[in-house]
Amino acid sequence: MTENLFSDNLKLTPISDIGEQGLINLLTQNIRFHQQSTLLGAGDDAALIQLPEGEQLVVSTDSVVEGVHFDISYTPLKHLGYKSVVLAISDILAMNATPRQLVVALAISAKYTVEAMEELYRGILAACEQYEVDLVGGDVTASSAGLMINLTALGSAPAAKLVKRSGAQVGDLVCVSGDLGGAFMGLNLLEREKRIFRESPEIQPDFGDNDYLLQRQLRPEARKDLLDIFTNLNLQPTSMIDVSDGLGKDLERLCQASGVGAKLYEDKLPLDPKTLSLALEFSIDPTLCVLSGGEDFELLFTVPQTAFDKVKSHPDISIVGHITDASEGLYLISKTGTAMELKDRMYVQ
Amino acid sequence: MTENLFSDNLKLTPISDIGEQGLINLLTQNIRFHQQSTLLGAGDDAALIQLPEGEQLVVSTDSVVEGVHFDISYTPLKHLGYKSVVLAISDILAMNATPRQLVVALAISAKYTVEAMEELYRGILAACEQYEVDLVGGDVTASSAGLMINLTALGSAPAAKLVKRSGAQVGDLVCVSGDLGGAFMGLNLLEREKRIFRESPEIQPDFGDNDYLLQRQLRPEARKDLLDIFTNLNLQPTSMIDVSDGLGKDLERLCQASGVGAKLYEDKLPLDPKTLSLALEFSIDPTLCVLSGGEDFELLFTVPQTAFDKVKSHPDISIVGHITDASEGLYLISKTGTAMELKDRMYVQ
Repeated sequence: MTENLFSDNLKLTPISDIGEQGLINLLTQNIRFHQQSTLLGAGDDAALIQLPEGEQLVVSTDSVVEGVHFDISYTPLKHLGYKSVVLAISDILAMNATPRQLVVALAISAKYTVEAMEELYRGILAACEQYEVDLVGGDVTASSAGLMINLTALGSAPAAKLVKRSGAQVGDLVCVSGDLGGAFMGLNLLEREKRIFRESPEIQPDFGDNDYLLQRQLRPEARKDLLDIFTNLNLQPTSMIDVSDGLGKDLERLCQASGVGAKLYEDKLPLDPKTLSLALEFSIDPTLCVLSGGEDFELLFTVPQTAFDKVKSHPDISIVGHITDASEGLYLISKTGTAMELKDRMYVQ
Repeated sequence: MTENLFSDNLKLTPISDIGEQGLINLLTQNIRFHQQSTLLGAGDDAALIQLPEGEQLVVSTDSVVEGVHFDISYTPLKHLGYKSVVLAISDILAMNATPRQLVVALAISAKYTVEAMEELYRGILAACEQYEVDLVGGDVTASSAGLMINLTALGSAPAAKLVKRSGAQVGDLVCVSGDLGGAFMGLNLLEREKRIFRESPEIQPDFGDNDYLLQRQLRPEARKDLLDIFTNLNLQPTSMIDVSDGLGKDLERLCQASGVGAKLYEDKLPLDPKTLSLALEFSIDPTLCVLSGGEDFELLFTVPQTAFDKVKSHPDISIVGHITDASEGLYLISKTGTAMELKDRMYVQ
């Protein structure tokens, strides 16, 4: 962790001191644009964008709600801002499109200060820098309870590059980027330390050497690099979805959209050693972390069997199964060779 | 009013019975597209849009929050859905662009049922029909308190047609569509009846013959027709903004963006007779309704003096003032000819 999770702001200014317009002006004053397509950002009734010639527009919206998606007691606001952007642009990446612009609407309850919102925006803008996405508009309003962040991400790509959920074909290889289940174990770790802190406030949180898992939960990255990897491998996936709700649920969605089934192989599931060891320490089935954990923001995609040589030894890609006829359902082949319905492994037994 | 404001749903299904995905599927099953540019709507990671050739993309986001922007005790959900869309596309119209697509994110507390959200969506989709806007995506999540609706509207127009806030020139005429202050008086009426109902529940609400004012508040319309009026008059406004926070505040924003001042003439302000008579009944200054009332969703725009003949007798347009040098400030010339700073007339004395 690069900063103290439990740090406090020194100066505390109520938002009512500067008003909603004052807050918007403050938050948007340091915005820098990266995209040629951005013609006009915040400050008018709407933003103006000139789409790159010949490309199609890709649009997705997401909300992140206090008490539902995050627990402010262990989520630093800067990380929350960063993660929210990752979550938003991950949907654009899942179409194999380049994220280009973002609009953010905040609803803020009275407990939040100007400094807290500046911290949130530092995270939002850090992610915008990292992914070269332009924050082109926003809305700030009061909320009766808690903080709510809505993000609409815009991107674009040539039509021939776009990948939907619905293109998987029988025989395709099921692939996933990176490793899975880490964000879920990071969350378990944070919740354990929160419980201990509540019971014995004198005990400092002990995250051991699990920085990687905390980062997967608190400050994940979106797999924008996959776009380049696909280009360099001259690989066009047949279908794709981002892994936001766990491999099991998201594979189910992809298969449903494509009208196919799939077989996953338990021994092929990509687990980081830290995820594995902490899962065992917590007595959680590591396969359950992968299938149901969520929030890893990796990309799940299918490629034709003819692309096997391109993906088989790529360090960022794991082949985890293959697409079957819809009538064959969704199955996990266990390490011992037993086939079981995926949904029966997606929940705690 | 076309329906009972206080009607109850007969069937009540908790959202947990069908889940968030089930609710999304239910709400989006009857969506019909109007725009050729819509290639793919809800159901994938993102929507796909092919912008009309040679047009620029216009994007705006807004949130509508229970307890802040609406009082559910007198706001029928269908009207709320309709009004939310009006609010969102009004920003696109204010750029002189055609609204084309919409994404909607809902955060819903436990008190809302499936039937309530269906009613909200009936309003959203009715507005989409009315304005030929395509609902191409959405997100549904739980909220810890109340209902929150976030809408991001997309539109487009040829670059030469787009109008920003920043183009007003000294000498330009200040014009406004329709009439102002009606939505504010509608709100006053609803709040009076709510107070009476609380104190004496046996008394039925009495809205008199003020249907027009209730409609201005509960189910306003966006001035999409102005786009055609401008085209037919061969008129290109130099600047434009929608009147969402009252003529005073929105003119101030326009003048600030353009680096100019303005003089408004009190006797030119467009008031509907119903607004005038109810304001007098409530002992509210009618000019205050116009300057500070808000939510009228009319368009405020400037045109060169050379366009005087085009606008002077148009039934949907009022010339309410002219643009001055910034050093001359923002003034209202009263009916008696006295000049007073606009901000001194924008708040109750």
